[in-house]
Amino acid sequence: MSLEKFFNPKSVCIIGASREKNKIGHIILKNFVDGFNGKIYPVNPKAKKILGLKCYKSVSEIKNKVDLGVVCVPAKIVPFVLEECGKKKIKNVIIITAGFKEVGNFKLENAVKEIIKKYKIRTLGPNCIGVYDPHTGVDTIFNPKSRLGRPEMGSIGFVSQSGATMSIILDWMSLKNYKISKAISYGNATDVDESDLIEYLSKDKKTKVICLYVEGLKDGKKFLRVAKKVKKPIIALKGGKTKGGASSAKTHTGSIAGKSEIFSGAFKQANIIEAQDLEEVFDLARILSEQPLPKGKKVQIITDGGGFGVLTSDWIEKKGLEIAKLSDKNIRKLRKIIPPHATTKGVIDLTGDVTSDMYELSVKLAVEDKNVDMIALILLFQPPGIKEDVVDKILKIKSKKPIVIISTGGKFTEKLKRKLEENGMPCFTSPMRGVEALKALYKYSKL
Amino acid sequence: MSLEKFFNPKSVCIIGASREKNKIGHIILKNFVDGFNGKIYPVNPKAKKILGLKCYKSVSEIKNKVDLGVVCVPAKIVPFVLEECGKKKIKNVIIITAGFKEVGNFKLENAVKEIIKKYKIRTLGPNCIGVYDPHTGVDTIFNPKSRLGRPEMGSIGFVSQSGATMSIILDWMSLKNYKISKAISYGNATDVDESDLIEYLSKDKKTKVICLYVEGLKDGKKFLRVAKKVKKPIIALKGGKTKGGASSAKTHTGSIAGKSEIFSGAFKQANIIEAQDLEEVFDLARILSEQPLPKGKKVQIITDGGGFGVLTSDWIEKKGLEIAKLSDKNIRKLRKIIPPHATTKGVIDLTGDVTSDMYELSVKLAVEDKNVDMIALILLFQPPGIKEDVVDKILKIKSKKPIVIISTGGKFTEKLKRKLEENGMPCFTSPMRGVEALKALYKYSKL
Repeated sequence: MSLEKFFNPKSVCIIGASREKNKIGHIILKNFVDGFNGKIYPVNPKAKKILGLKCYKSVSEIKNKVDLGVVCVPAKIVPFVLEECGKKKIKNVIIITAGFKEVGNFKLENAVKEIIKKYKIRTLGPNCIGVYDPHTGVDTIFNPKSRLGRPEMGSIGFVSQSGATMSIILDWMSLKNYKISKAISYGNATDVDESDLIEYLSKDKKTKVICLYVEGLKDGKKFLRVAKKVKKPIIALKGGKTKGGASSAKTHTGSIAGKSEIFSGAFKQANIIEAQDLEEVFDLARILSEQPLPKGKKVQIITDGGGFGVLTSDWIEKKGLEIAKLSDKNIRKLRKIIPPHATTKGVIDLTGDVTSDMYELSVKLAVEDKNVDMIALILLFQPPGIKEDVVDKILKIKSKKPIVIISTGGKFTEKLKRKLEENGMPCFTSPMRGVEALKALYKYSKL
Repeated sequence: MSLEKFFNPKSVCIIGASREKNKIGHIILKNFVDGFNGKIYPVNPKAKKILGLKCYKSVSEIKNKVDLGVVCVPAKIVPFVLEECGKKKIKNVIIITAGFKEVGNFKLENAVKEIIKKYKIRTLGPNCIGVYDPHTGVDTIFNPKSRLGRPEMGSIGFVSQSGATMSIILDWMSLKNYKISKAISYGNATDVDESDLIEYLSKDKKTKVICLYVEGLKDGKKFLRVAKKVKKPIIALKGGKTKGGASSAKTHTGSIAGKSEIFSGAFKQANIIEAQDLEEVFDLARILSEQPLPKGKKVQIITDGGGFGVLTSDWIEKKGLEIAKLSDKNIRKLRKIIPPHATTKGVIDLTGDVTSDMYELSVKLAVEDKNVDMIALILLFQPPGIKEDVVDKILKIKSKKPIVIISTGGKFTEKLKRKLEENGMPCFTSPMRGVEALKALYKYSKL
């Protein structure tokens, strides 16, 4: 009874497929038509064809094997279609439909529970947004792509109790060019819960890092047991940590969300990295999915802007890391091509007279220098001596040491940053965020 | 001996104007040609015309009155051209040229000092980037506009010890659409220093908020005396707060930057808001320049995404603010148009079924409700019921209470956020940053 078919089905039926463009059952069908390579069976008793595909009056009318069912019919007929799915031996079903225990309809929720038990159907939902998997084209997000962008294929897995939070974050990720392996919102968790999903992602080869947004846990002991075994970084953001927040969470997902210390303690026990904020989740996810772990805590700063070097030095020390010092031998090598007023003791400040070659050599030397564990590369692209090729030069350097880029600027900078990010070099706008990412890498390397 | 002519001269001469496109003396001249309405006199003994303007062999050759001189000739001839400026009775001079005390050339620095004393010339620099004033077109930033964007006219004033830091931040501001009144980097501060500039900005009608990046202070007592008198918010970011950072600062601006506690203490004494990071400087600058001060600490959260409501509630409590509760009367009014499953106790969660009208009414009621001091408006634009007109509806509401927008998403969201920002509604991507901005407003209202 695996979860695999939620993400990688050979065939899918959309139960409640619709002809009307703004309906959930149309948008989801269109998502599959646009991006999914397997067989698609729209189920709608009143339509003959939707989006060029033959419609089926019911699930039972489909002759071939169906791996995944997506249910978006009104709540009261969900039990009926689930029975049909059971008889058809569909082993994985996503119930998008809302209107169950989250609005007090426990009777309907229990009816669903019994049917999926009887037929051993692994179920996501009800009351969920479901799955987005850019690798296979499974996409049950019911906001159209014009409003909500979809991130590209990558290695960040995302599990969210809140459907809106998940979809909005996906939208943001697509803008920022963060790449993901799978995203799952699990709604009422009538069957599959956060622990099942974390366990699944821990074995998924495409996922390097697991992110979690959670308000309450369905089964705390199970969660701890599962999380402790995971060998990948898990980054968790907990909603409802304060009295006010917990009270909001109660009306939101019905979770008893309080007892923040207990959560934080459990996270620590299970080696879960707790983020304080949405932006931190992604800073950590990016760095942990893209960069190797450091051997120690010495950070070489390379900059062409003195002020940014000073601010970065401050954060390195505040966060308990150390400022690295390039060996004398390597400083001598560097001195041959940098201006006499450039500083090299501690921070390497190439100054506004910087060229692409100076950046390239500095990074190469830091990568091979035994005094350096990590590199904070402050790439300020405004000085005239830097050519756009600096990006290619940096990307060509093979490094087993983590490198973060700190780079602030306007359009020109954004263009070059995008190229770096697309090739696995995480870029940060502020010294604080860049150093926090390095700190997280160092911390995780010690677990 | 006012600083006014640095920002609002009727005439300017560029001493060292150049025909060569990549030279500082050309870029600065071009900045003035492109954006300045007064008279422009290029000075270059070897050229007849540059950029269509008649060239002067020397300052003394100019017949008319000159308000501002911009010097970008080689260091060794700076004293000579300063003498000429003095005789010509130019009262304000910006010396861009580097190569003085910052590289150990104290003799040349002293020569400059004596001449400007003798002629009572108010001087910015040497070794500085100088001034950018979008209101008047004064722009001595010597990075071309293709690499370094210029922010539009607004009310944030920026003073930076570090020239590169200032110019890079301006580039970033232009991308993010932050608007400024004036930006000044003052380099070696041979004459005009940070305190003079703060005092000037405190009296400048176009400036509502003063931002400061500083590594060391030239005269601590003067700084305290000046800052204490300022009736506008001052936001300061101090570089070189740790041992490592201070050591970087020493090689950067030659500042004795340490003694972080002394700085923080002084900032507190002078009612200066200390930011921890570059991004925080701008979050605070935006909110303090654009929004009114609150009467109390009760924040009404309005959202269409439950998870974001929970996270925002958490931050409100963590930051020592309070979650507001709309009066029963207003809740009844709201209930008439919102879905039955929307929550209104504490957080107003309009759910994914939100419409533009629901947002409009919620904000209107919160603005007039006596239980509400501030509004955290979480505008998630992804649900299909929201039309683009929601932005106009929100912008039309007259509010004497501060409103921050928290909004996360992709391209569609960015477009609508830009319109809000352009009309003075600060938008934040994460709950944490939005609430931190409200906290800063509240804190400043208590000073």
